[in-house]
Amino acid sequence: MTLERWRKIAEWPLIGASAIFLIAYSVQAISDPPGAPGLLLEDLIWVTWAVFLLDYIVCLSIAPRRWHWFYTHLLDFGAVVLPMLRPLRALRVVTLLTVLQRTAGRALRGRIVIYVAGSAILLVYVAALAVLDVERSGAGRIQTFGEAIWWAFTTITTVGYGDYVPVTFQGRVIAVGLMFSGIALLGVVTATLASWIVERVYAQEASRQTATVAHIDALRAEIAELKGLLAAEAEQRILDQEDPDARSGV
Amino acid sequence: MTLERWRKIAEWPLIGASAIFLIAYSVQAISDPPGAPGLLLEDLIWVTWAVFLLDYIVCLSIAPRRWHWFYTHLLDFGAVVLPMLRPLRALRVVTLLTVLQRTAGRALRGRIVIYVAGSAILLVYVAALAVLDVERSGAGRIQTFGEAIWWAFTTITTVGYGDYVPVTFQGRVIAVGLMFSGIALLGVVTATLASWIVERVYAQEASRQTATVAHIDALRAEIAELKGLLAAEAEQRILDQEDPDARSGV
Amino acid sequence: MTLERWRKIAEWPLIGASAIFLIAYSVQAISDPPGAPGLLLEDLIWVTWAVFLLDYIVCLSIAPRRWHWFYTHLLDFGAVVLPMLRPLRALRVVTLLTVLQRTAGRALRGRIVIYVAGSAILLVYVAALAVLDVERSGAGRIQTFGEAIWWAFTTITTVGYGDYVPVTFQGRVIAVGLMFSGIALLGVVTATLASWIVERVYAQEASRQTATVAHIDALRAEIAELKGLLAAEAEQRILDQEDPDARSGV
Amino acid sequence: MTLERWRKIAEWPLIGASAIFLIAYSVQAISDPPGAPGLLLEDLIWVTWAVFLLDYIVCLSIAPRRWHWFYTHLLDFGAVVLPMLRPLRALRVVTLLTVLQRTAGRALRGRIVIYVAGSAILLVYVAALAVLDVERSGAGRIQTFGEAIWWAFTTITTVGYGDYVPVTFQGRVIAVGLMFSGIALLGVVTATLASWIVERVYAQEASRQTATVAHIDALRAEIAELKGLLAAEAEQRILDQEDPDARSGV
Repeated sequence: MTLERWRKIAEWPLIGASAIFLIAYSVQAISDPPGAPGLLLEDLIWVTWAVFLLDYIVCLSIAPRRWHWFYTHLLDFGAVVLPMLRPLRALRVVTLLTVLQRTAGRALRGRIVIYVAGSAILLVYVAALAVLDVERSGAGRIQTFGEAIWWAFTTITTVGYGDYVPVTFQGRVIAVGLMFSGIALLGVVTATLASWIVERVYAQEASRQTATVAHIDALRAEIAELKGLLAAEAEQRILDQEDPDARSGV
Repeated sequence: MTLERWRKIAEWPLIGASAIFLIAYSVQAISDPPGAPGLLLEDLIWVTWAVFLLDYIVCLSIAPRRWHWFYTHLLDFGAVVLPMLRPLRALRVVTLLTVLQRTAGRALRGRIVIYVAGSAILLVYVAALAVLDVERSGAGRIQTFGEAIWWAFTTITTVGYGDYVPVTFQGRVIAVGLMFSGIALLGVVTATLASWIVERVYAQEASRQTATVAHIDALRAEIAELKGLLAAEAEQRILDQEDPDARSGV
Repeated sequence: MTLERWRKIAEWPLIGASAIFLIAYSVQAISDPPGAPGLLLEDLIWVTWAVFLLDYIVCLSIAPRRWHWFYTHLLDFGAVVLPMLRPLRALRVVTLLTVLQRTAGRALRGRIVIYVAGSAILLVYVAALAVLDVERSGAGRIQTFGEAIWWAFTTITTVGYGDYVPVTFQGRVIAVGLMFSGIALLGVVTATLASWIVERVYAQEASRQTATVAHIDALRAEIAELKGLLAAEAEQRILDQEDPDARSGV
Repeated sequence: MTLERWRKIAEWPLIGASAIFLIAYSVQAISDPPGAPGLLLEDLIWVTWAVFLLDYIVCLSIAPRRWHWFYTHLLDFGAVVLPMLRPLRALRVVTLLTVLQRTAGRALRGRIVIYVAGSAILLVYVAALAVLDVERSGAGRIQTFGEAIWWAFTTITTVGYGDYVPVTFQGRVIAVGLMFSGIALLGVVTATLASWIVERVYAQEASRQTATVAHIDALRAEIAELKGLLAAEAEQRILDQEDPDARSGV
């Protein structure tokens, strides 16, 4: 089976597993239910992890260039390995992003916007869950999901009021990830706007528009026509020379 | 009636309603007058809301592709629905921005700058009003309009000192909106500068300037001239051939 | 006298006045000397102000289109009017920037970098002076020049720790100005880098380089040569036709 | 010996010295060992400094245009001089970056990403070390390496929570350097993304692609062919004229 075919087959099960994981982890992190429901959630999380592990092993074993695949899919590797570090397991949901990436394909500006907005919302949500999970038992001020979401927004936008700040090691690792996501977010927003403005500015000054392949093709067509004229003339002359009287009417 | 015509008719009434709403809401949020004046302001705000609701219903009913219009005008929908959530109603004034957008038309760099500067100032003002409205009764430190404006500026620039921070749910929702506006502001400023610098850098190195449509047109004109020369020559030869003695003087 | 000539004459006196103002204001804001030295500094500041006022009046009176000049030189206007608001007078030194702009002329990337770096350093220095001047007597934590500089750096970079924050109205106005300068700084840095990266990326992939005016000129030269060939041939034929025996050796 | 040759020879010893310095300084700043091990570390740091000083002196003496070299290598100068200011000596490791720059050569987008990511990580690490070194003995809150790293990340991303802030003069100088590195980081991320998005957007709209040198070369080839046709025809005519009967079969 080719890697391409496996990915087509695995796509929807992976999205489903991501969604189940996200819901189970959300319930666990926000309400932290004790007893049987808590254990059931724990089991669900482990099952989704098994699905991701299976996908990773299959992909790695059928990839034509195994090391190249490993090197270019470090995010998938992290998504499988991180749950071992239990409180950081929420980051496993980044696989949902890699799944999205598979379906998004080549990115146009419209797709970039949707993909980035989706990633940002998901990142804020997951980071808030994970930080709440690791900070709740500590001495930090982040004690409710609302506070965690508020903290996540102030961090990803690089505003950083400092009214809520993670104080545990794991919480700070998540925070650093979110900060760099914020830089990436800013970069993508700016770059997309820049590409859009450049296009609009030039679209309005028609005579100053950059020469495009379409223009070159038009030029080429005219040169081809010229060549045709020359060739026709050369041929005509040969005919004239071979039979000069046919036309001059002598 | 076409959507285009309705928009022309509705443009100025909508700007007027936005301005009245903004003034009424400002007075209410800053001085919070009790008794009859307070009720009058409340009534004024409801009247402006009715104007926006009317515009929204008319637009939706005469739009050729209703779902497409709904999907591409979510901001208008929000502007109509949000006032229901009373303390967030200030955000309705974002319709003033959509009205501005209608008149601004296609955006050149100059227009982008004016539009962005205007939006930023309006956003800071409205966000300060709305935050003051929801935070004044809470335990937060934002208690005067001056403090609210100061907080809004530190937030939209993503500086985020943290000396004044919203503590209510509604205040934080407004803050998150302002933070993302800050990211957009940064993006627009950067993108506009980038487009300007790229233009200036190339404008100075004339020989390295990008080939434009104007250049291609010049080339085309020369090729056309060449074609004309060829055609004239071919025609001349035919004349010569038909009457070789006319010129050779035999 | 033309505006252009006046500017050439006034350039160095204005730079001198800016430098004197900057030094006098620095000494006043940092050490706040009482008695005679303090009065002398005050006088010096007023003298430099008179120089700027004179320049502004002359420029406005000899400008060909007065309103246009006023509209495009609002910064100069602010530099003259602001000292009236005594504690904000340090902002007058922004005229030094407008003087720099006069000499910098059209901006290439190298010049942009120097101009922006210079502006950023000057802005941080002047904002620190002005904030120290207005905050020292208040209840804020900014009490020494070192603290003011530290605050100015955290603000212009949009880091905003919040350990030192202006608490007076005037101090906050200066802070907002510095925040927006920070956004502009970020924008210029990013835009300059973007223009540089775009250039380097394309410079390396020679065959994918954008077609430039130089290339179009080369094409044009070849087409001109072609036209020359055609013209020469046409002329030669006319000669042949007029005297067919001269060459055919009949 | 040419400067180019010396650089090739000195490259690996310099990387080695940088690595030894980084390790020795890390141990010293983090654990601050007393007695003999501390003195040994101190000696190691001085030895690596001597290596950098030697490289600097040799480069300066064999550079063809000494002042130009000095002017364009201020970073190397700083790396040699700064250790004199003992607590700031960690900044000397920026030479590691200049060494990296030598090997990185002309920067493509891929290389830029690697170089920037490496620089950011190194800067965070070194700034954390240096701040820890100068702040530990002060009244600030930064007392462990973990806190210093956390502070460095919040600073370079311009988030700036303000929960940990340097309070000494030297610590603040390092912080300002890190803030501007953060602005540069943001700029490079954005610019790289912008260049990538612009490329992707245009790559998809083939007919709207910018005309490249390759296209111009194709046009040139066609014009050359045209010229060839013309020349062949002109030559043929001369042959015909010289011997008109050879072909017309008279």
